[in-house]
Amino acid sequence: MLRGYYRGADGALIAVGDVEAVRQALADPKSLVWLDLEVPSPEEAGVLSDVFDFHHLTIEDCLAARWHPPKIDDYGRYLFVVVHGVEEYVRGRELEPLELDLYLGANYVVSCHLAPVAAVSRLLERCRQGGLVLDHDAGFLLHVLLDGLVDDMLPVVDELDETVDRLEEEVLADPQRATLQEILLVRRNTMRLRRFTTAEREIANRLSRGEFPTLVREEAHVYFRDVYDHLVRIDYLVESVRDLADGALNTYLSVVSNRLNEVMKVLTAAAAIFLPLALIPAVYGMNFSRNTWPPWDEAWGFGLVIGVMLAVAGTLTLFFHRRGWI
Amino acid sequence: MLRGYYRGADGALIAVGDVEAVRQALADPKSLVWLDLEVPSPEEAGVLSDVFDFHHLTIEDCLAARWHPPKIDDYGRYLFVVVHGVEEYVRGRELEPLELDLYLGANYVVSCHLAPVAAVSRLLERCRQGGLVLDHDAGFLLHVLLDGLVDDMLPVVDELDETVDRLEEEVLADPQRATLQEILLVRRNTMRLRRFTTAEREIANRLSRGEFPTLVREEAHVYFRDVYDHLVRIDYLVESVRDLADGALNTYLSVVSNRLNEVMKVLTAAAAIFLPLALIPAVYGMNFSRNTWPPWDEAWGFGLVIGVMLAVAGTLTLFFHRRGWI
Amino acid sequence: MLRGYYRGADGALIAVGDVEAVRQALADPKSLVWLDLEVPSPEEAGVLSDVFDFHHLTIEDCLAARWHPPKIDDYGRYLFVVVHGVEEYVRGRELEPLELDLYLGANYVVSCHLAPVAAVSRLLERCRQGGLVLDHDAGFLLHVLLDGLVDDMLPVVDELDETVDRLEEEVLADPQRATLQEILLVRRNTMRLRRFTTAEREIANRLSRGEFPTLVREEAHVYFRDVYDHLVRIDYLVESVRDLADGALNTYLSVVSNRLNEVMKVLTAAAAIFLPLALIPAVYGMNFSRNTWPPWDEAWGFGLVIGVMLAVAGTLTLFFHRRGWI
Amino acid sequence: MLRGYYRGADGALIAVGDVEAVRQALADPKSLVWLDLEVPSPEEAGVLSDVFDFHHLTIEDCLAARWHPPKIDDYGRYLFVVVHGVEEYVRGRELEPLELDLYLGANYVVSCHLAPVAAVSRLLERCRQGGLVLDHDAGFLLHVLLDGLVDDMLPVVDELDETVDRLEEEVLADPQRATLQEILLVRRNTMRLRRFTTAEREIANRLSRGEFPTLVREEAHVYFRDVYDHLVRIDYLVESVRDLADGALNTYLSVVSNRLNEVMKVLTAAAAIFLPLALIPAVYGMNFSRNTWPPWDEAWGFGLVIGVMLAVAGTLTLFFHRRGWI
Amino acid sequence: MLRGYYRGADGALIAVGDVEAVRQALADPKSLVWLDLEVPSPEEAGVLSDVFDFHHLTIEDCLAARWHPPKIDDYGRYLFVVVHGVEEYVRGRELEPLELDLYLGANYVVSCHLAPVAAVSRLLERCRQGGLVLDHDAGFLLHVLLDGLVDDMLPVVDELDETVDRLEEEVLADPQRATLQEILLVRRNTMRLRRFTTAEREIANRLSRGEFPTLVREEAHVYFRDVYDHLVRIDYLVESVRDLADGALNTYLSVVSNRLNEVMKVLTAAAAIFLPLALIPAVYGMNFSRNTWPPWDEAWGFGLVIGVMLAVAGTLTLFFHRRGWI
Repeated sequence: MLRGYYRGADGALIAVGDVEAVRQALADPKSLVWLDLEVPSPEEAGVLSDVFDFHHLTIEDCLAARWHPPKIDDYGRYLFVVVHGVEEYVRGRELEPLELDLYLGANYVVSCHLAPVAAVSRLLERCRQGGLVLDHDAGFLLHVLLDGLVDDMLPVVDELDETVDRLEEEVLADPQRATLQEILLVRRNTMRLRRFTTAEREIANRLSRGEFPTLVREEAHVYFRDVYDHLVRIDYLVESVRDLADGALNTYLSVVSNRLNEVMKVLTAAAAIFLPLALIPAVYGMNFSRNTWPPWDEAWGFGLVIGVMLAVAGTLTLFFHRRGWI
Repeated sequence: MLRGYYRGADGALIAVGDVEAVRQALADPKSLVWLDLEVPSPEEAGVLSDVFDFHHLTIEDCLAARWHPPKIDDYGRYLFVVVHGVEEYVRGRELEPLELDLYLGANYVVSCHLAPVAAVSRLLERCRQGGLVLDHDAGFLLHVLLDGLVDDMLPVVDELDETVDRLEEEVLADPQRATLQEILLVRRNTMRLRRFTTAEREIANRLSRGEFPTLVREEAHVYFRDVYDHLVRIDYLVESVRDLADGALNTYLSVVSNRLNEVMKVLTAAAAIFLPLALIPAVYGMNFSRNTWPPWDEAWGFGLVIGVMLAVAGTLTLFFHRRGWI
Repeated sequence: MLRGYYRGADGALIAVGDVEAVRQALADPKSLVWLDLEVPSPEEAGVLSDVFDFHHLTIEDCLAARWHPPKIDDYGRYLFVVVHGVEEYVRGRELEPLELDLYLGANYVVSCHLAPVAAVSRLLERCRQGGLVLDHDAGFLLHVLLDGLVDDMLPVVDELDETVDRLEEEVLADPQRATLQEILLVRRNTMRLRRFTTAEREIANRLSRGEFPTLVREEAHVYFRDVYDHLVRIDYLVESVRDLADGALNTYLSVVSNRLNEVMKVLTAAAAIFLPLALIPAVYGMNFSRNTWPPWDEAWGFGLVIGVMLAVAGTLTLFFHRRGWI
Repeated sequence: MLRGYYRGADGALIAVGDVEAVRQALADPKSLVWLDLEVPSPEEAGVLSDVFDFHHLTIEDCLAARWHPPKIDDYGRYLFVVVHGVEEYVRGRELEPLELDLYLGANYVVSCHLAPVAAVSRLLERCRQGGLVLDHDAGFLLHVLLDGLVDDMLPVVDELDETVDRLEEEVLADPQRATLQEILLVRRNTMRLRRFTTAEREIANRLSRGEFPTLVREEAHVYFRDVYDHLVRIDYLVESVRDLADGALNTYLSVVSNRLNEVMKVLTAAAAIFLPLALIPAVYGMNFSRNTWPPWDEAWGFGLVIGVMLAVAGTLTLFFHRRGWI
Repeated sequence: MLRGYYRGADGALIAVGDVEAVRQALADPKSLVWLDLEVPSPEEAGVLSDVFDFHHLTIEDCLAARWHPPKIDDYGRYLFVVVHGVEEYVRGRELEPLELDLYLGANYVVSCHLAPVAAVSRLLERCRQGGLVLDHDAGFLLHVLLDGLVDDMLPVVDELDETVDRLEEEVLADPQRATLQEILLVRRNTMRLRRFTTAEREIANRLSRGEFPTLVREEAHVYFRDVYDHLVRIDYLVESVRDLADGALNTYLSVVSNRLNEVMKVLTAAAAIFLPLALIPAVYGMNFSRNTWPPWDEAWGFGLVIGVMLAVAGTLTLFFHRRGWI
């Protein structure tokens, strides 16, 4: 899908919907054009080479389904930026990174993605409603896109932070296999985030440092610095979530072992009380024909044996109770 | 709440309580003004933009409840500094970081925070009592604020260090689930501290290196270096507390397994002594009508069997005692 | 085996099959020559010293079976590049690195390897079919070779990533010793990949940065940058696969301990129910000749004892069922 | 305690014992003065500010009981150096770091410490006996002090290295809780050493690199380089001791689990042999009044049952012996 | 032992055996002298100070038994290089590092070691047989010594790599305590290697970068680069061996726990089958004098009870077999 907007000579926002409109929009070098390609058809993708004349390697990156690490490449006339966001977080599901490829030229920004990106959709909607999206230069528009992408990551990372807190408590209170599964999922998610947040932070840093003076004006640096700050925060959180998840994984084992210990104490106490106890009636169950030992032939014999058994049981129970086993 | 002080022309400290007083205080470029905004109302926050004309991104940072990583941004006319302290440590509770946002201008310092900060309150109190807080320049005042913040962190970190020592001993002596919980809490706390101490140390380092010569005079460098030294110490301690907590976590498992071993030895010894022992009376409890084997029909039969049982029990007990199982 | 191609004066691709043809091919300084030595015989290897006059240390590297770390050495007249690829991945087998040694001169590329390399074979085949392999300069040909090598690594790394995902699930669902074995294999494979991917990435980086201006033209930088991007992706994946494998290893232990716990609960419940239960009939099996205690001599005695045993069994079963042990 | 020495005009070493003597010693700019303050009284500490006019922050560092990280601060006229040594190692006790604060001026060295430092005491003793301590310049004297401090650390670190070797063997041979305790102690000690050795190494490096040309002459660089080498060695050892201690901690768990396994095999074998065995006499102990099954009424019945029991016991024992359980 | 060689005016290699010969050899500034001191006697060690006039700190390093970290120090007139090799690897024994101290002057190389070094002995033997060892300059001779030292390390590291592969398989197949011991030994050995390989690699790097132009000619750089490459390979291998050893240590625990699980299942099944089974004969062994319940007085009673017991045993066995416990 090809969508775009530019500000016409009369100041009104004009929508761009096909290749021809793109050419027309670019005709005026003073007007800022934003073009968004969502899952572009081959003809729409043709704009990248035919109209903009971008390097074919960058176009391959845009169209390849394979994931690319974040980067910023300077082609002189334009910058090619690859960044990633994340889809909305659904508990128990793996985070899916969203790749957004961006071209920044003197008077245009081209965004290209193979899946819907919430931040882009919101911005298109704002344009459609006549919002003040295209009132600054192309560098600022790039910032708005990056900022939206990063803003959508913050709640996801906060959610992960809270999840790991909850998991720590679950592990201590009642470790289930589902808890293990969730911890592993959190680890995998932080792993996925780390694949791009650090590189993305470096990109924001370079944009804020004035490395590309022709395309990013000095006024915009502070805004990219703001994006950088958010990415620093995300990085810190991702790092600490991963560390806490590792801690929870180790703790899981300790808690399970502790439980095993409790179970074993009960077993041991049961065996150590009842096995000796069983010897007593067994002894008096022997069939000696001429046995004359007391209390064999006494009326009170049975009562005495029962009494001795109760005494032994009581003593052993007390002993194991004192050791805290039962 | 808006509070502040400045030194009037006559040398007396004058309190600032509303927006108008702020304007008046700033009128004299030679007097040093300190303005503190604690949970500012919208009108009070308006001072930041209307009177001081700070960049709107910094004002957003000041007013947003979300946590920001420490940073120092140079806006030419003023520095914007974000630092963190910690609330007083309460055993068993998670450390809450306190964000303090600071503006350093040529003749003013503006501090802004969304929760009470002990170091700031103490300093305001000293001003109220006519202390020598505003007798140096703005850079020195910034140092005093940072120093107070960092000084409040030292006892917290020392407390964590002692806690982890105590936990190590607890783990070795008597590992409870509560011990696990405390270890995890210590880890989480060091995690929280690490989110800002390293970045904060870098800020102190930059302030002490003469990176901002117009706003921080050379005489103040050594003072920021002192703050830096404290943060180095905190960093070392946080790092080692975390490492020791990890060690305690691993040890926990070893100690629990060791205990399990002890329990199992008792169980095994009990089973291996009493199960064979029980065979003897069982054998003599069989009902063979024409059994003529000795000692079936002897008067001393019962005594002999009891003797054999005692001998077997003694031998097995000795055997397991020698192996150190009971 | 010595194979090669060069573009003759008439533009046709001419195959090179022996040492003499190599000399002839190099005679024209304007034609690009590609020479591939696969497991070269001593005579074929002689080309390296006799015809090309390469440094003898590099020739030793080419011919030694021992593995060499990736590197790029500048000998002025030519570059010597050592890179590694991997053989096709076979599940359950260790990855075998394939060393490819490359010389890049002004008008030639010499590739040398002691095992068949798929990327090289494909390119030779393309040459044989008259493909446009030699239409650019030597630097570009070097890129094509590196690119092929790296492209063959991407599916292998993706496969490892999927394997570790599957292993994580296997560990949670049904941990077998074979799962352990596979996890260790994945770790060993990532270990092997890490031995060269990071160094290889650095090589691509240096080639894309214009460090060798005489041999690699500026136009080729962006292509080496593309190779670099792929290697960054591989590096990220290898790192995260290793980390996930470590997580799976830790989880394995937790799952096994959890199972042990389940088994132990059944055992403990069995012992704690049946051991006390067995005391009851044992008591009534004693042989007291003058026993007059009820229900010894009652007709309903047997029924009563059975009833008591069922009641005790029921109570204990209910108790352990409530604790979730059976 | 204030002690010191300087070389008089006649070449004889003159002892310094009070503040006045210090002033006198400093009067001659050509004579080298060494002043040592051990747990200085307030009056003695006054020398630092009154006589030497050191920066008050450094004096606070000297007198504060709190531990400071190693550092070297250049105040132009003098250097302020904070370093740490360790007390003599007592097995089973935590290492106590010893802070030594040093001032290096053009013709004096002032050392200050709040606990006795063996290296300093030895040097004072050498001065008292007229040793050649003050025959070089102040930079060299600083080196002698640092060298003594570091030399006292080498045997401690070697001792730790040997301890961890012994602990590894203990863990494999006979893991006791005391072994765990010692491992944790070794880890804590390496942790304490790491808090300052790395920073101290950096200080020696800076002193050997000619960073302070006015106070440290080029001839002394090689001596500080020697101190640096010792600290590198200490650093390597501390790092590897810590790693080996971690390995021993992990091994502990494995050895304990292994033992548990052995115990469990005995238990299982005992239960699996004696429980079925006990069924046989139990069956023949039933009281059926009209039982006519053989061998009930045969004279050889008892012998047969005993024989069957022995056969079953032998078969099961053999079976478990073959599996290596008993 | 003092041994050495130099090339006389007539081109013949002349052996050096005592101090006087050393002086004579050095007389001709054009001839290259190699002097080797193996466990030098005090008189032999005197050569270092008296004849060569080396710095006394370097001589102390040569003669001190204590291990020194690798380093390269530039004394202008000569370089002082400390490197380490390893003794031949004996399975099951700890690696012993061999320190080799080297002086590189304009026309001499002095090697000094306190234990026999195979690489040095081989080279001395080659000299004795008139080999071409001294035909290049001193820098090249230094390279030959380093190269020999590093070449002797390669098989050791390869052996460690194979050992860890074998240990991994042993752990999975049949984890014994001896396996644990070997894993720990491998870890300790990699630890020992890491103490010097990384620093040694840096030394080779500096020598190959032209940092010492007066003593190491440009032609030799590529040879030191070759040594560097070998050390990179060693470093990679050591790192991965250590990581694999850690993995094997973790796996050990998992395998042992798995086994414990198997043992426990057998125990639990045995207890859960035979304990209920034993109740049946126990019930029929009770002595009720007036019991009239069937099958007490029936001839088929005994057979029935035996049948019920077999049915119960079969059912339980089937149940546990289905769960895979027996």
